[in-house]
Amino acid sequence: MVEEKKNAEVVDVRWHAHAVSRADREQAAGHRGCVLWFTGLSGCGKSTLANCIDRKLHDRGCRTFVLDGDNVRHGLSASPALLVERHGEEFAARFGLGFGPADREENIRRIGSVAELFSQAGIITLTAFVSPYRRDRDAVRRLLPAGDFIEVFVKAPLEVCEGRDPKGLYKKARAGEIKSFTGIDDPYEEPAAAEIVVDSATKTPDQLADEVIAWLERAGTIPRRISPS
Amino acid sequence: MVEEKKNAEVVDVRWHAHAVSRADREQAAGHRGCVLWFTGLSGCGKSTLANCIDRKLHDRGCRTFVLDGDNVRHGLSASPALLVERHGEEFAARFGLGFGPADREENIRRIGSVAELFSQAGIITLTAFVSPYRRDRDAVRRLLPAGDFIEVFVKAPLEVCEGRDPKGLYKKARAGEIKSFTGIDDPYEEPAAAEIVVDSATKTPDQLADEVIAWLERAGTIPRRISPS
Repeated sequence: MVEEKKNAEVVDVRWHAHAVSRADREQAAGHRGCVLWFTGLSGCGKSTLANCIDRKLHDRGCRTFVLDGDNVRHGLSASPALLVERHGEEFAARFGLGFGPADREENIRRIGSVAELFSQAGIITLTAFVSPYRRDRDAVRRLLPAGDFIEVFVKAPLEVCEGRDPKGLYKKARAGEIKSFTGIDDPYEEPAAAEIVVDSATKTPDQLADEVIAWLERAGTIPRRISPS
Repeated sequence: MVEEKKNAEVVDVRWHAHAVSRADREQAAGHRGCVLWFTGLSGCGKSTLANCIDRKLHDRGCRTFVLDGDNVRHGLSASPALLVERHGEEFAARFGLGFGPADREENIRRIGSVAELFSQAGIITLTAFVSPYRRDRDAVRRLLPAGDFIEVFVKAPLEVCEGRDPKGLYKKARAGEIKSFTGIDDPYEEPAAAEIVVDSATKTPDQLADEVIAWLERAGTIPRRISPS
């Protein structure tokens, strides 16, 4: 028993001395970890732009990942209906997320926490959520070390977004089939001091992606060119 | 407006065709993404082993990350006390996690969801949590594609773990200062079919790390040797 305890102490010291640090991971990646937080109305092009940047950075050898509704709302922020089978009704009602105010707040909080973990892993993390409330976005900003949270406001007039309506959501919101839809019967609070503002009404995703990447180069998040590995 | 809609459609097609896939990320990483889920009594050496493997894989050029209490319980699975200042009491009471049965279940569920995202990013994800209930671990296993969930049972007799007691938790549990402590007054359910079982009572973390890494090589998760980039 004494022998075991001794081992545990030795092990503990070794652990602290040799644990892989964020700096180690960033050095291996060849760039800094960060969170590119895209925000804007439904249909403004957040996901399109995030995926366009993801592709360009990936092709340059960067370590990247995109968090969006597709991979978050089925797992991390699953609805009560998705949780009930495996976890029971009481559990699903407590922890499952809908689209009410507190549920949205918790959804953004969970996404922010996960984005923080990804950035600690040295990954350029791109999140694409409407995230309409300034308070919720600012809470994520405060959660992260200074400089890690890069707010990207994807700006387009409501008419343009509603004209695109890629998922037919505006039509449903106008028909009253969806309640509390951002821009229709729920507010979108524009960022007061976003690091990056892009105009998706007049430029292509490809152009906007290059603008964002140029910003990252200037900020020193990524090198101007990553040599092929 | 028609022009905009046309653009959106074109963009949508481009998005689907060029989005970075999991296979793309794994190719860039040079290995598969997966979740190494370490489970075992407090003091059995889960964190020590996970960090030892993390260091060895990182030094081989693998993309890795460790999820443990230190980086999860302050953010993703924050306690009500941590949430109350920023989110208010009602919110904190609903979404904050303590250590009751449902809270633990939700903690493991959130960690499983995050580990899934990391593995989709092509990362070898190491999770170090007691995770005492078979049902909760199996729920994470079912959440993931076949082969992605690699359960590592870090086996050591209770007496050995209690003898180590690196955080003094067993002492507190025996004194009744901590309730529902795994192994003392709450059960630990041993895995019935873990992919890997390691004996931390008789071997060093270094030896066990090599055993796990050899398993990953045999399974084809990582190549036998990654050439330096």
